[in-house]
Amino acid sequence: MVFEEKTLSSEMIYRGAILNLRKDKVTVKDSHTSYREIVEHSGGVLIVAVAADGKIPMVRQFRKATEQVIFELPAGKLDPGETDPLVAAKRELHEETGYTAAKWTHLVSFYTSVGYSTEMLHTYLAEELTAGDTDFDENEAIDLELWEPEALYEMIDRGEIIDGKTLAALLLYRTRQTADSV
Amino acid sequence: MVFEEKTLSSEMIYRGAILNLRKDKVTVKDSHTSYREIVEHSGGVLIVAVAADGKIPMVRQFRKATEQVIFELPAGKLDPGETDPLVAAKRELHEETGYTAAKWTHLVSFYTSVGYSTEMLHTYLAEELTAGDTDFDENEAIDLELWEPEALYEMIDRGEIIDGKTLAALLLYRTRQTADSV
Repeated sequence: MVFEEKTLSSEMIYRGAILNLRKDKVTVKDSHTSYREIVEHSGGVLIVAVAADGKIPMVRQFRKATEQVIFELPAGKLDPGETDPLVAAKRELHEETGYTAAKWTHLVSFYTSVGYSTEMLHTYLAEELTAGDTDFDENEAIDLELWEPEALYEMIDRGEIIDGKTLAALLLYRTRQTADSV
Repeated sequence: MVFEEKTLSSEMIYRGAILNLRKDKVTVKDSHTSYREIVEHSGGVLIVAVAADGKIPMVRQFRKATEQVIFELPAGKLDPGETDPLVAAKRELHEETGYTAAKWTHLVSFYTSVGYSTEMLHTYLAEELTAGDTDFDENEAIDLELWEPEALYEMIDRGEIIDGKTLAALLLYRTRQTADSV
């Protein structure tokens, strides 16, 4: 049985636009106490969309935290109070790529950084796509590209996919495709 | 060419033990400005260690941010000022599992959450293991288990690996094994 930390007190340090930061005082093993710094995040969605020709829409976006343009799968945050991540996935796919999809399959939901963040990403496979116009958030500058899966797998093999969520979701799609083709 | 945001001003909101939080005012497209909330994190390491019998050491640890015990690969933060992640990987593998490894291979380095965190995880394959005693941090309660890769892949297929870093690294190891066996 792994020791479970209990909250003794909790201090909200910052309430922001995309995250809050709080500091919890907790029980740790041997009757000691410690502190945990926790980023509260509403969570988000991540989409592996597959067009009729097998190509996958990818986006390039400058990410201030990394100080570089990151090559990613389409993704986005849940709206405040949003309880159905599939609704968010449909919205974000359309906003970032213009596509709508007739077939949606939940692949996995995972935490991005269990050490300090509550953020969970709900990952979907979107198929049977119909193209349309994009509808970016006014503060987002996003380039859209369509990629052959094999070219993405080669990037992975060369260590060139450096966005963790994109790496996990593309690899999951890759192993599913391999399993289906056996 | 994707628009790159420039920093107009930067405010440090919180300096903590494992992270800092700052708020940057940035240029966005169409000559507008916006704010980016950024978690500064020293980054860390993540280890897929493979014993002589093929088994992979996994750990279970209560993660306050998720309010549950998470099943993960061995991992840890870089020490302040630490520049060689391989040194950190060797330390963390030994602390959490007791193992030392004679063969180390860098697999990939990736960001855990590009939307708001500077955290990068350097991921290694560790082979030719020698068992030894664990040396946990005094505030960590960690259970160690040895797992057959196939059993881990089945957990992935059932959506039961919910730690993003573990999902990405195990899937990367899985695809490499598949490639090697072809």
